Amino acid sequence: MFTSETQLRVRYADTDQMGVVYHSNYFDYFEVGRAEAIRQLGYTYAKMEEAGICMPIVDAHARFLRPALYDNLLTIKTTLKELPVHHKIEFVHEIYNEQNQLLCSGKVILYFVEKTSMKRAVMPEILKKILEPYFT
Amino acid sequence: MFTSETQLRVRYADTDQMGVVYHSNYFDYFEVGRAEAIRQLGYTYAKMEEAGICMPIVDAHARFLRPALYDNLLTIKTTLKELPVHHKIEFVHEIYNEQNQLLCSGKVILYFVEKTSMKRAVMPEILKKILEPYFT
Amino acid sequence: MFTSETQLRVRYADTDQMGVVYHSNYFDYFEVGRAEAIRQLGYTYAKMEEAGICMPIVDAHARFLRPALYDNLLTIKTTLKELPVHHKIEFVHEIYNEQNQLLCSGKVILYFVEKTSMKRAVMPEILKKILEPYFT
Amino acid sequence: MFTSETQLRVRYADTDQMGVVYHSNYFDYFEVGRAEAIRQLGYTYAKMEEAGICMPIVDAHARFLRPALYDNLLTIKTTLKELPVHHKIEFVHEIYNEQNQLLCSGKVILYFVEKTSMKRAVMPEILKKILEPYFT
Repeated sequence: MFTSETQLRVRYADTDQMGVVYHSNYFDYFEVGRAEAIRQLGYTYAKMEEAGICMPIVDAHARFLRPALYDNLLTIKTTLKELPVHHKIEFVHEIYNEQNQLLCSGKVILYFVEKTSMKRAVMPEILKKILEPYFT
Repeated sequence: MFTSETQLRVRYADTDQMGVVYHSNYFDYFEVGRAEAIRQLGYTYAKMEEAGICMPIVDAHARFLRPALYDNLLTIKTTLKELPVHHKIEFVHEIYNEQNQLLCSGKVILYFVEKTSMKRAVMPEILKKILEPYFT
Repeated sequence: MFTSETQLRVRYADTDQMGVVYHSNYFDYFEVGRAEAIRQLGYTYAKMEEAGICMPIVDAHARFLRPALYDNLLTIKTTLKELPVHHKIEFVHEIYNEQNQLLCSGKVILYFVEKTSMKRAVMPEILKKILEPYFT
Repeated sequence: MFTSETQLRVRYADTDQMGVVYHSNYFDYFEVGRAEAIRQLGYTYAKMEEAGICMPIVDAHARFLRPALYDNLLTIKTTLKELPVHHKIEFVHEIYNEQNQLLCSGKVILYFVEKTSMKRAVMPEILKKILEPYFT
């Protein structure tokens, strides 16, 4: 298992007239979680795209338990429970506020895809080698 | 069962550098579907909020099958499979392109909540009366 | 002079906790205005990109007079005061609510650019021919 | 004069199909700059709203010189050139990439307004006292 944490602050633009973060923004926060998880491993999603692999999202799910509010400093916990074997990778996300209350949990499934052909690919070897030690 | 359709055009702002609609925007499109579904019933979500009831989202799920592209005219099909009995309502959404290909399907669960107290409420009587004939 | 009008409805996602449309969304609305202006001329921005020309924005200005609210049906008036001679084009935008009150006015300057080289280009001949009659 | 700097990383959601940050996102970045400028002074915009003052934007302008790209770590420089005397405050923003190239500059004018009445107000005394030493 590999787990990573990162923080971000809720922007005014993310709030809605209910006075809370509009729900679709949490999916953007999840993506920040994924990007920082890969960076903490010493690689980046940007490098992966440069190397010709991109990761379209095929499935996204979120449960909203408590609202995030403007200016809240959120902690995004991103977990990879299994090492991906084929073209598919599944991230689990949890978002906490400063009182360590769970606000939102979710799961996002992405495919590794060749950027030019959009054909299914596998996780780049370089990332696989970094991740393997977490799953043995 | 109640089903409603509406259309919207993909904006440039909704695309990402993969050349497709960024996934979190589909949840905004789903919401357009819900708003127009209620409008087609002769009521509006805006009126519901004025009447003191708001509808926070508690669960959102989407599967992405094919990418939507810039300037695509999308059809959003919004379905209520059951008449809500308590504080909970569940919408099913499907998004099609102009070639009638299914691009994305999803399910969004919302609660009826009193705007001031944020306590659970039920569907406004006025909306219930309009919807009942679709479920008998 | 060429003027065009289109309408759009304010989405919940566009509101903020002040209960009004968050200001940066107006620039997205302006873009809807430009896209529909070109469509009303019988061409589309999408076709222009396919033909190898894109239009990055180099300058954007907006004045906010009255707030747009959730579910408001807005009219976006888009005006081309001069036929562009070189690589530069300037659009004037005005946004009105259903009571015909001016909510926001703005000006956006874009360049015609070759998509592959990002070098300055001129307006595609096809669009120029359609526009010329409005400026004589 | 008061100047403040903060950093943020470009999210995938902020890019468009031109492969660069979509222009309206810069106005959201400007707002991050303002929020962090106030925080660095020992106050927050969130506290100001709690104290009954909000700050709607009345004018926003940006010039786009070079594109910001996905995953770029941007520096937002926010400057207050004059201490506001009445209900009006003007922020100057500059955004730089990691190579210290200026990507975008802008100016945003906001009003101090009473949250309940939406009547013009002045800068809260607490913030004025913190700012005054920078302007003498």
